[in-house]
Amino acid sequence: MAETSTKAEYFVGVDLGGTKILSGVFNNSLALQTTSKLSTKPQRGVDAVIDRIARCVHDSVDEADLTIKQVAGVGIGAPGSVNFDSGTVIFAPNMPGWENVPLRKHLEKALGLPVFVENDCNIGALGVYGAELKSKPASMVGIFVGTGIGGGLIVNGQLYSGFNHTAGEIGHMVLEINGPKCGCGNKGCFEALASRTAIFQRIKEGIKDGQKTLLTDMLGDDLGDLRSGDLRKAIRRGDKFTDKVIEEAAEYIGIATANLINILNPEVVVLGGGVMEALEDEMMSIIVETANDYAMAGTMKGVEIICSKLGDHAGITGGAVLARSEIRKKKSDA
Amino acid sequence: MAETSTKAEYFVGVDLGGTKILSGVFNNSLALQTTSKLSTKPQRGVDAVIDRIARCVHDSVDEADLTIKQVAGVGIGAPGSVNFDSGTVIFAPNMPGWENVPLRKHLEKALGLPVFVENDCNIGALGVYGAELKSKPASMVGIFVGTGIGGGLIVNGQLYSGFNHTAGEIGHMVLEINGPKCGCGNKGCFEALASRTAIFQRIKEGIKDGQKTLLTDMLGDDLGDLRSGDLRKAIRRGDKFTDKVIEEAAEYIGIATANLINILNPEVVVLGGGVMEALEDEMMSIIVETANDYAMAGTMKGVEIICSKLGDHAGITGGAVLARSEIRKKKSDA
Repeated sequence: MAETSTKAEYFVGVDLGGTKILSGVFNNSLALQTTSKLSTKPQRGVDAVIDRIARCVHDSVDEADLTIKQVAGVGIGAPGSVNFDSGTVIFAPNMPGWENVPLRKHLEKALGLPVFVENDCNIGALGVYGAELKSKPASMVGIFVGTGIGGGLIVNGQLYSGFNHTAGEIGHMVLEINGPKCGCGNKGCFEALASRTAIFQRIKEGIKDGQKTLLTDMLGDDLGDLRSGDLRKAIRRGDKFTDKVIEEAAEYIGIATANLINILNPEVVVLGGGVMEALEDEMMSIIVETANDYAMAGTMKGVEIICSKLGDHAGITGGAVLARSEIRKKKSDA
Repeated sequence: MAETSTKAEYFVGVDLGGTKILSGVFNNSLALQTTSKLSTKPQRGVDAVIDRIARCVHDSVDEADLTIKQVAGVGIGAPGSVNFDSGTVIFAPNMPGWENVPLRKHLEKALGLPVFVENDCNIGALGVYGAELKSKPASMVGIFVGTGIGGGLIVNGQLYSGFNHTAGEIGHMVLEINGPKCGCGNKGCFEALASRTAIFQRIKEGIKDGQKTLLTDMLGDDLGDLRSGDLRKAIRRGDKFTDKVIEEAAEYIGIATANLINILNPEVVVLGGGVMEALEDEMMSIIVETANDYAMAGTMKGVEIICSKLGDHAGITGGAVLARSEIRKKKSDA
C-alpha cells in the first residue's frame, strides 16, 4: 500500500487508445502502484472522452489509496499526431472528431494538475527508455508491433520527434514496393506486412484458400475473436501454417530492424507492443538473426536488440517518465 | 587572389575517394579559393596514398598563393567506416589494405596541422548543411546518389553518427525484398535500385534484351565509357528507354526519401552526388512528387526536398566546415 504522505510525489501515466483508456499511478522511483481501465467510447464525442480520461485518472489514484493532491503531474500518450509544446492532439485517425483538441488544457482544468501530452509511440519509447533501460543508452529505437506498427526514437538521450513532431512513423517505411496494400493508401509498408492486422489477414486468406490450421478448431471457421495469444497457442500445439505466417512476419520485422540500424545506428533496439508480448518466444530469435543478416558490416557491433518486458504498460510508464522529467525540468529552471 | 596575411585563417577540405583525391582551400567564410586533384592510386599501398593526400593538400595551398602556415586545419572525408574520435579509418571497402589506418596521426605528422577525419557521406552532409544551408535547419538528411548511395544525418544542428559511427547507411535500406542483388549480399537495397551502378546495369540489360537507345549510337554497343551526363544527353535528344530507366530510379529515390521523412521527419532533405548533379532537371520533380505520395499525412508540412548546388564540392566543403568548427570548439574550450 502507498504511503500516506501528502507531498505530491506520485506521477500518473495515461495510455489513451481508440478502444480503452489505461491509467497507472507510479511512485517517484517509477514503481507502478495501481492501474485503472475504462473503455474509451470515442463515439460519444471529444468532451465525453476527456471526462472519461479524468475519471480513469481519479479511479487509479483512489485505487492506490492516494488523493489527487499527492500527484505531481500526469503524462498522457494519444494515438495520432500531437503537438507536445501546446499539448494539442492535432489528429487521431481512430477517434472521430479529434482534430486540434487542446487535450492538455482540458485535462489540466479537469484535474487541477500539470499535464503533458505526447504521441503514444513516443511515450511508449520513453517508458522503455526511462524505466526499463534506466536512460543508460545514448540512443534507442522502439518498434511497437500491435494492430498497427509505430516507433519512437531516442537520440542523444532525448526523445526525438523531428520537425513536425511526427518522427518515428516507421510503420509506413516501404519494405516491399508493390507489396500488400496498407491502410495509408500505399503498398508494401512495414505495417502492411507485419502488424497484427496484416498477420490476421494472411491467416484468413490462407484459410479461404483451403489451408488447414488448428485455429479453426479452436475458434470456428470465421476466427471471430482471434487474438495474438491464439497464434501462440496454435504454434505450441504444432500448427505449421500459423508457424510459417509468424516466421514470415518476424523476418519482415528483422528487415525493418536492420533498415533502422543501417539508418540510425542506435545503441539499443527495443521491440514491444501486443504482438511481441504474445509471441516473443516465437519471434525474437528470427528477428535478431534476420537483422544481423541485413545490417551492414560494422553497424551491429555491440548493438542490442531486445524485447521490452513492459508489455501493455509501456505507455503508462512513459507517461510517468514524461511527467516526472518535465516537472523536474521546471523545478530546476525555477 | 588570396590575402597575404600570415595568420592561419584558411581551412583545407579533402575528399578521399577510391579513384581520386580532391583538395580545396577555403577562407574563414567558407568561400572556395582553389582546388587540386590527384589520382588516389590505392594499389600503391596505404603509405603512398597518405603521401599523395599530403601532396594534394600542399598543391591546393600553393595554387591559392598561400603557405601551409596560413592553414588552420584540415578536414578529410574517407570512403568507409571511420572513428572520428581517434581519426582512424576502420575499413574502406574500395581501398585495399585500409584497415585500422590512423589517418589523422599520419597526416598531422606529414602536414604539421590539426587534421579531422570523417566518413565521406557524413562530411558531404556537413558541407551542405554548414555552407549551403548556413546551419539553419534543426535537422537534415543528405542523400548522395553516385556509384553507390550514402547518407548523412544532422540532428539538433549536429552531425549524428550513432553508436558505431555508421549512421546514415541509407544505401542499404531494403526497399524491395527479393529485389535486385546488392553488392552487400542482400537484395533490394536502395543502392541496388537507384545508384549509378544500378542504373547502368538496367540500361545494359535492356540493350542486351534488344531495347533501342540513342546511347549505343553515341557510345557504341558496349557503352564502354558511359557516364551519368550521357544519360542526360540521350534523354534530351528524346531517348524513351533512358527516360524510363531514369524515371524509375527517381521513383525509387522518392520512396527512399519518404521512408526517411517518415522515420526521421527532418526539416530539410538534400539530394546530392554525381547522379543528382548530372540529372537534377530530369529527376527532382519526380522525386518530390513520389516522396509526397509516400510520406504520411502531416509529416511533409513545411519539409523541403532540395538538390544540393555543391555537386562534386560537397566533400571538400564539408572538410572545411568540419575543420573550422572543431578548431573553434577547441579555442572556446581553451
